[in-house]
Amino acid sequence: MHHTLVALVEDKPGVLNRVASLMRRRAFNIESLTVGRTDEPGVSRMTFVIDGTQTGIDRVVANLYKLVNVLQVDDLTGTPAVSRDLALVKLSASPLSRARLHRTIDEVGGHVVDSGTSTVTVEITGEPPRIDHAIDRLRALGIVELVRTGATAMARGDRTIKADAAPAAAVVGQ
Amino acid sequence: MHHTLVALVEDKPGVLNRVASLMRRRAFNIESLTVGRTDEPGVSRMTFVIDGTQTGIDRVVANLYKLVNVLQVDDLTGTPAVSRDLALVKLSASPLSRARLHRTIDEVGGHVVDSGTSTVTVEITGEPPRIDHAIDRLRALGIVELVRTGATAMARGDRTIKADAAPAAAVVGQ
Repeated sequence: MHHTLVALVEDKPGVLNRVASLMRRRAFNIESLTVGRTDEPGVSRMTFVIDGTQTGIDRVVANLYKLVNVLQVDDLTGTPAVSRDLALVKLSASPLSRARLHRTIDEVGGHVVDSGTSTVTVEITGEPPRIDHAIDRLRALGIVELVRTGATAMARGDRTIKADAAPAAAVVGQ
Repeated sequence: MHHTLVALVEDKPGVLNRVASLMRRRAFNIESLTVGRTDEPGVSRMTFVIDGTQTGIDRVVANLYKLVNVLQVDDLTGTPAVSRDLALVKLSASPLSRARLHRTIDEVGGHVVDSGTSTVTVEITGEPPRIDHAIDRLRALGIVELVRTGATAMARGDRTIKADAAPAAAVVGQ
């Protein structure tokens, strides 16, 4: 089962290395990973989509807390969350095929962000399953190149995942 | 200076670990990182935004090629490229402030994807500097939580970055 884990980490050298090393040791298959700055100075946020059993995921969460510079870990799986992914898709485009191409791009909710003499590049944003479906439909047109950011996620409603919500010191002992 | 590096890697355990370890040893500051599947079976794509001199970046590219399971590396800096980032921003929202809030969200090109009793969650997509600017404007309204996927990028026009464009065996010796 796919799990979406969010980790808030201190923006220090070696954090990514330690986290990747833990995932490697636990033999977790990372489906996607995004790492970027937050609005809290010195704090980065990682969003993992990983495949595993609930027991395995619980163990990873506990182990992540034990790592230096890891401030907060949350499993958003099964809780109401907004999850978003972004794909850039380069499609082959002949002069003859462009009308059909643009119709399909409209239908899947994509929009053209660039074009070449024989390609068109499309951006699609949405919930990950919606992107999967759009890519399946675009595949029939001829995908030349594809890149996805991977999912990023946030709890729905007023719930937040903040570094100051649970001081690291209190949970390190887990 | 910020550089955007794209690496195509085999989807094998330990690749992220080796790449992160290289960045750590070279003391590169990773601004953002996205890792996700491509449309080529068994191939994942990493997009790094890192800070460094051209000499330093050239050395990292050469060293990445030496790693097991790294198929292709491209520095998109200075070449025409489509670069996209996605932010989710949770804003504090009182009943009184909502009209102003929605006006500002419209002005920065965001759209509401969720709302709670005291918050509104907004999605913004675009070139990374556009997102920076939007976040600066939204900050005045009270940002409760912020997450960004980090940039993903693709060369403009018909140019592609494909794993089969340069067989790994031919470049490993660099």
